[in-house]
Amino acid sequence: MQANNPPPAELVALLERAPITRLLGRRILALDLEAGTLAVEFDGSEAFQNPARQIQGGMLGAMLDDVTAVLVTATLEPGAFCATLSLNTSFLAPAGVGTLNGRASFERRGANICNVRGEIWQGDTLVASAAAVCMVRRPRQAAAQVRPDR
Amino acid sequence: MQANNPPPAELVALLERAPITRLLGRRILALDLEAGTLAVEFDGSEAFQNPARQIQGGMLGAMLDDVTAVLVTATLEPGAFCATLSLNTSFLAPAGVGTLNGRASFERRGANICNVRGEIWQGDTLVASAAAVCMVRRPRQAAAQVRPDR
Repeated sequence: MQANNPPPAELVALLERAPITRLLGRRILALDLEAGTLAVEFDGSEAFQNPARQIQGGMLGAMLDDVTAVLVTATLEPGAFCATLSLNTSFLAPAGVGTLNGRASFERRGANICNVRGEIWQGDTLVASAAAVCMVRRPRQAAAQVRPDR
Repeated sequence: MQANNPPPAELVALLERAPITRLLGRRILALDLEAGTLAVEFDGSEAFQNPARQIQGGMLGAMLDDVTAVLVTATLEPGAFCATLSLNTSFLAPAGVGTLNGRASFERRGANICNVRGEIWQGDTLVASAAAVCMVRRPRQAAAQVRPDR
């Protein structure tokens, strides 16, 4: 993982302005491009509760989709973006209304395909985990400068 | 699939009152217990948009979690509930703000473990699909009456 490609301020601003960011109440806590890791927190809102008054698992999945995609996006050159192809999620423990912590790390950072692990914690409990497969999409002119890995 | 176990009115009312139901704007269109299928629709809200102004994939996953769990729940005896263990989601096409249609069907309806397929459509386009593994949880007294399959 190279640290020489910090996310431009415009990218961070774009991510922060997205409606889904507000819905999930996501805040970036720590981004380490050298290690290829991201830590965020989410607001587990009352609006996310299922009939059992737990945070619906699918909303934990939305958080996992977010934290994994933001990590990939933070490593991209301007103009490129991350398209998630699949998200395989395991639900490990119930989560209640309140703060949830998200973590993402690269399993493999290819030029075009990234495999990313995500975790959602509530306090000391790992409540959900996921494996995301993400594709890097580039404008045509930018793509010509990158040697595809697949 | 037996049709002799229709969802009690209280169960439907409970599902409809859940905050996540309101957030996703989910309405049940057709439930066929004989065929083991469910059709619903969701409101793809502006609040679900990612930075590209598409519906965030994770929110399509939340819809897939919902439609698959509601199908399982609709087949359960009073007091039992559905706990989703995993949701493996593929994102197939971008979806925009507007109505999304959800479908669920049983791949296998075990006594304790259900394998359920889910699809999200926007118009004629299949935008996301998932395979859910769901566990049926029962109160202790009800569980004694059911022979476990796993």
